[in-house]
Amino acid sequence: MNDASKARPMAQNIYDSPEFFENYSRLGRSVEGLEGAAEWPSLRALIPDLRGLKVLDLGCGFGWFCRWAAGQGAAHVLGLDLSEKMLTRARAETPDTAIAYERADLDRLELPEAPFDFAYSSLALHYVADAGRLLGQVRRALRPGSEMVFSVEHPIFMASARPGWSVDEAGNRAWPLNGYSVEGPRTTDWLAPGVVKHHRTIGTWLNLLIGLGFEIRHVEEWSPTDEQLAAHPEWAEERDRPMFLLIAARLKD
Amino acid sequence: MNDASKARPMAQNIYDSPEFFENYSRLGRSVEGLEGAAEWPSLRALIPDLRGLKVLDLGCGFGWFCRWAAGQGAAHVLGLDLSEKMLTRARAETPDTAIAYERADLDRLELPEAPFDFAYSSLALHYVADAGRLLGQVRRALRPGSEMVFSVEHPIFMASARPGWSVDEAGNRAWPLNGYSVEGPRTTDWLAPGVVKHHRTIGTWLNLLIGLGFEIRHVEEWSPTDEQLAAHPEWAEERDRPMFLLIAARLKD
Repeated sequence: MNDASKARPMAQNIYDSPEFFENYSRLGRSVEGLEGAAEWPSLRALIPDLRGLKVLDLGCGFGWFCRWAAGQGAAHVLGLDLSEKMLTRARAETPDTAIAYERADLDRLELPEAPFDFAYSSLALHYVADAGRLLGQVRRALRPGSEMVFSVEHPIFMASARPGWSVDEAGNRAWPLNGYSVEGPRTTDWLAPGVVKHHRTIGTWLNLLIGLGFEIRHVEEWSPTDEQLAAHPEWAEERDRPMFLLIAARLKD
Repeated sequence: MNDASKARPMAQNIYDSPEFFENYSRLGRSVEGLEGAAEWPSLRALIPDLRGLKVLDLGCGFGWFCRWAAGQGAAHVLGLDLSEKMLTRARAETPDTAIAYERADLDRLELPEAPFDFAYSSLALHYVADAGRLLGQVRRALRPGSEMVFSVEHPIFMASARPGWSVDEAGNRAWPLNGYSVEGPRTTDWLAPGVVKHHRTIGTWLNLLIGLGFEIRHVEEWSPTDEQLAAHPEWAEERDRPMFLLIAARLKD
């Protein structure tokens, strides 16, 4: 992939900072893979039949989805990530020759025209400063009729200046939302200090896609099912404010 | 319109309670009409050319939009509302014979097939208990290719058990969000005690429309423009948590 457009600032490579990488590697989703991610069943339900498709994974991390896609019969899977450490582990754990990993900065990425039939991204696009530019590149890289399924941190979760629960005298838990309509960078201390993410509203995500010629297929503000809640009572807070936003869209013919 | 399906519970008719009606009648949007509604410029921008179209307005209130639509050249406008008091004033202020007002409960409404070319609703559909049923009726009433534009109270605004600002020791304002993923009735004291609204997430609104064969055209979580904020500095809080959700959709051919 060509990311030679050096005029654009490079994205923060927080995943390669030793502290962040070590803490990230301990998360359920890093140890157990897709099944360790609470939102994976919802995301998986949006993914079309991948048999014979050429698949693009933006922010592939350790390569869990790339390997799953190949296991579903994808003809070719390209996983892109900025983190050398994650790509090193991904390559070491991937014997499948239908999968290729490349280092790429999603803020600078330029993709060739229409070699892919499906685009996927899990919790990566909120690190991108110019989502419109990147989605334009994804549109360019997809054949007409292709689908895109992605998740981002939910704007309700990301907007707040003080992203943590408040509890009043009566013990009622609430998420102190502010700045929802003020889009732009948010710096938080998640796994390491100074992690930079980029907040945009649900409306902005959807209107960007619509403006590029995608048709919205499904929008899910993830919360646990009753079964998940029975197994993980600590997930109840996810029903008070969503943490994940899942979107499925189809590039029109 | 036929609302004879008596098995369904009738909606709360709060607008006809004397206290609510008197307070509602004093709001800017009741005195000044569309121009008194902060979100109207954003809503208007989503409305197609109405010339020659048959227009349906769900929850027409005092008839401001019906008269505007007729002024834009709509061939016929049908305004529906549950409130006798609002319809009485609407009829008194509407000499235009292209406009008809009928009393209807949106929770029981049954519409005929395809007589309309455009459907509109302003801040009414969040009073409806079964939005899927009502949107199905709207779909039935629209010719293929027709557009629908509507606003509802934003789910972020409606979800909270304690919908009011909290301010911490440092003076930071926050909206205490909870129960976002718990859909269903919310009872608040707005203009009168015990007003019942029905909360559903953005995802639910959009997936209902998509499932019925609508294509999402635009989603806007309204916040004031810089110009509006200069004229109304007190609207700054609307950038901290949105109050209105605006959706434009098109019934596929």
